[in-house]
Amino acid sequence: MKELKRYKNYWKELVHLENTLSLLHWDLEVIIPEAARQERAEQIAYLSTLYHEKFISHEFDDIIANLTASLNSLDISDEERVILKKELEVLNYDRYRAKKLRTELVEELARITNLAHGIWANAKQNQNFSEFAPTLQKIILLIQEKAEQYGYNTERYDALLEDYEIGAKASELEELFKHLKNSLIPLSNQFPTYPNPFLKPVPKELQYYLCKKISTLLGLPENSHRLDTSLHPFSTSIGANDKRITTRFDEKEPLSSLFAVLHETGHALYEYGLSLSKNYPSPLTLSASYGVHESQSRLWENQIGRSRPFWEYIYPALLKELNIYHYDLPFEKLYNYVNSVSKSKIRVEADQVTYNLHIILRFEIERELIKGTLTIKDLPEVWNTKMKEYFDLEIKNDSEGVLQDVHWSGGSFGYFPTYTLGNIYAAQLFHFFLKTHQTFWDDVRSKGDFSSLFKWLNKNIYSHGRFFKPKELIKHVTGENPNSSYLEKYLKSKLREVSE
Amino acid sequence: MKELKRYKNYWKELVHLENTLSLLHWDLEVIIPEAARQERAEQIAYLSTLYHEKFISHEFDDIIANLTASLNSLDISDEERVILKKELEVLNYDRYRAKKLRTELVEELARITNLAHGIWANAKQNQNFSEFAPTLQKIILLIQEKAEQYGYNTERYDALLEDYEIGAKASELEELFKHLKNSLIPLSNQFPTYPNPFLKPVPKELQYYLCKKISTLLGLPENSHRLDTSLHPFSTSIGANDKRITTRFDEKEPLSSLFAVLHETGHALYEYGLSLSKNYPSPLTLSASYGVHESQSRLWENQIGRSRPFWEYIYPALLKELNIYHYDLPFEKLYNYVNSVSKSKIRVEADQVTYNLHIILRFEIERELIKGTLTIKDLPEVWNTKMKEYFDLEIKNDSEGVLQDVHWSGGSFGYFPTYTLGNIYAAQLFHFFLKTHQTFWDDVRSKGDFSSLFKWLNKNIYSHGRFFKPKELIKHVTGENPNSSYLEKYLKSKLREVSE
Repeated sequence: MKELKRYKNYWKELVHLENTLSLLHWDLEVIIPEAARQERAEQIAYLSTLYHEKFISHEFDDIIANLTASLNSLDISDEERVILKKELEVLNYDRYRAKKLRTELVEELARITNLAHGIWANAKQNQNFSEFAPTLQKIILLIQEKAEQYGYNTERYDALLEDYEIGAKASELEELFKHLKNSLIPLSNQFPTYPNPFLKPVPKELQYYLCKKISTLLGLPENSHRLDTSLHPFSTSIGANDKRITTRFDEKEPLSSLFAVLHETGHALYEYGLSLSKNYPSPLTLSASYGVHESQSRLWENQIGRSRPFWEYIYPALLKELNIYHYDLPFEKLYNYVNSVSKSKIRVEADQVTYNLHIILRFEIERELIKGTLTIKDLPEVWNTKMKEYFDLEIKNDSEGVLQDVHWSGGSFGYFPTYTLGNIYAAQLFHFFLKTHQTFWDDVRSKGDFSSLFKWLNKNIYSHGRFFKPKELIKHVTGENPNSSYLEKYLKSKLREVSE
Repeated sequence: MKELKRYKNYWKELVHLENTLSLLHWDLEVIIPEAARQERAEQIAYLSTLYHEKFISHEFDDIIANLTASLNSLDISDEERVILKKELEVLNYDRYRAKKLRTELVEELARITNLAHGIWANAKQNQNFSEFAPTLQKIILLIQEKAEQYGYNTERYDALLEDYEIGAKASELEELFKHLKNSLIPLSNQFPTYPNPFLKPVPKELQYYLCKKISTLLGLPENSHRLDTSLHPFSTSIGANDKRITTRFDEKEPLSSLFAVLHETGHALYEYGLSLSKNYPSPLTLSASYGVHESQSRLWENQIGRSRPFWEYIYPALLKELNIYHYDLPFEKLYNYVNSVSKSKIRVEADQVTYNLHIILRFEIERELIKGTLTIKDLPEVWNTKMKEYFDLEIKNDSEGVLQDVHWSGGSFGYFPTYTLGNIYAAQLFHFFLKTHQTFWDDVRSKGDFSSLFKWLNKNIYSHGRFFKPKELIKHVTGENPNSSYLEKYLKSKLREVSE
């Protein structure tokens, strides 16, 4: 059994390093003194290198080889042996990929993307894509090279997708998204737009106390998480019992902080559930993919957070915490606003209907950029044409168009589609949950009781970790491959409800 | 020059690890979710091991050997060569010592002290030394073994002192403290005790805003530090521009938060000054010793923070920030209270006069414990007898006697005397500063301007880092060996002032 113990210890050390890196990041985003940012970036770079070296080390090669050799003679149950075999399979695959990229490429990409952030930010400020174009060109060449070094069967983009959504293929996403796009374009025209019902600004402190109640209400244990503020809301795990989420406050849009908390709590609940596994920590007690992670945040943000029972339950507490009289904020006005849809040129301002059109547009474009069938020169025009086609909106300058997102300047290609995969998975999973939990909405409405959903997600998603690939996981839970029709049905039924 | 570059890079990586450890500790003391404490302890233990291994590694042996071999051929100035030689000397000594302790001893000490904390805390709660005695006996045997492994010339205690106050000898401390003790016993009887002048509790928030102003006023740049709260106030450095201090608030004793800030700001200013060196980071841009570090906190806490000019300057701001009318808090009552002296059985409640008697008592006792001339069995009685002799106080139970401090349960022997060394150095340094800065008190009183003191400390203390051993440093700056008469003179003049 000493082979198993040595392996478990080594993994635990990797987890300690990873959690330490998460703390360095969290502290940077949330509370670091301004003048310390540059040095923090160096600390993070150094610890990341340490992690990478430890992950691909010869010592770990030996530990894995010894464990593999002794696998059948270990004194563990058959069930444990199946899990351990899967663990080694997943680990071998991750290490195989981690060793595939040449150091020079990794360093050159780090160097360029580091510079690119400032160049992109300036170009965006100046509304001038041509300032960013040469840098983006270099990044794309390096990313294409990255895909080549990883290797692929059909097209380069698949190799990149694998970093975020293991097993996903561009051709399958194309199929999945085509159907969705055809529904969303008409839907986005049919949905009504409702005005902000808040008569006056709501102080940040009041919003904060409401938000604090929400994360605990949804199931995050009080003594195992924190809620703080940062420029961009995020969620991170710093240990089994240390889940941290952030939000931001806009006094004129008091619901934006609450929806950020709903979203980030969804991520944190997933991480919390992964840590509850009796096998934690192991290479399997990690999330199945970016798409599955996003499905957890979207499910709590949209399926729960925009539902009538949730708002019926939370409405009295909201009035009390935000110090508002009910006749100043009638329920129906509030609930309609929560489900309001309006087309925006900007992805991060989009609602649950139009958001996916923004993603599909980006997926189509970045796939062609990586393939080489779309050139940088033609990029802004293609962007603007698609915006006209999907949204009927005229892009006036590059800042509200092709320059709006940070992702490409950081070399993230293949990340965008996981947002929409998350929405698709969320609707599909929630549909199957509701089928077997007929009292759920009553429990929410009357008691604010979400425990049956947490239990179901724990059993069906959290506890599996990375045992299944995302597509397999969805099929395992729902009996079907990922299928956008559940998202379409969900949105159509929402449309009927808010148009009445 | 590549030998120099390799060495500098390696050192920078050690500093990144050390700063990361500081963040893990800071976060644990200040904001970690309660349930995450145990896992954080494991994270810290792992990173500490990484640091230790990297510090004593063969790779570092090679880097140092190569640099040493090329020292005379490096293209650097003569002054730089002197510094670099000293750096290597200090580094070689530290690594020599770090390699001296056997791993089994270090692990056994870590194991026992980890358990001892809970046993000590329970014994203290139960007011029963005999519950802690067997564990303390084991710790002392291990610490004696530690001293043997380090090696010494005259007595074991010297080997332990070396961890905290390089070059210090027990016999010299005995001499220094004897004189001080003979002054302090009569002084502690002559000083008046003044009552708390605050008529009602002061809310924490008001205290916080006052404290925030103090740390910046004394010279910590706004964007390079943080002030937070923790159970026990402390100061830590997480980077050149990331100095963090903490305080705690007692609504009935509103000055306690302010004095903690004065003390911790003194520590943080030292760390900030060390980072300003053009040589930073290097093995020399570290503090000279625990005693010198404490001299910096004590100087700002006592010589500045209990001075009349400081209070004359701060008085109007204090009234305003704490929302108090001047006739409810007359200046003289406030100022007398700040310098009030009263004998307490408890070290952490002691004032600037009696504090050093607490320390001298502990120094005398722990020296004998390590020597073996005092047994655990006789310890409580010896403690109580000395308390009677130095303070004329009767110890009623072990919790207010020998069990009051956490230090011994953690294996810290040789640490206590650095507190009083700090007080001695502070008085001596400040005396020499004042001799050449006759307008200082006027600048403080009229403008709250402490910049000449910061500049002087930067030139005479901070910028030297560890170039000098503490005793040499004091002699270098003041022309004399450490001398307790300056502290005695300072206290006697304070006595005259507050007795008028």
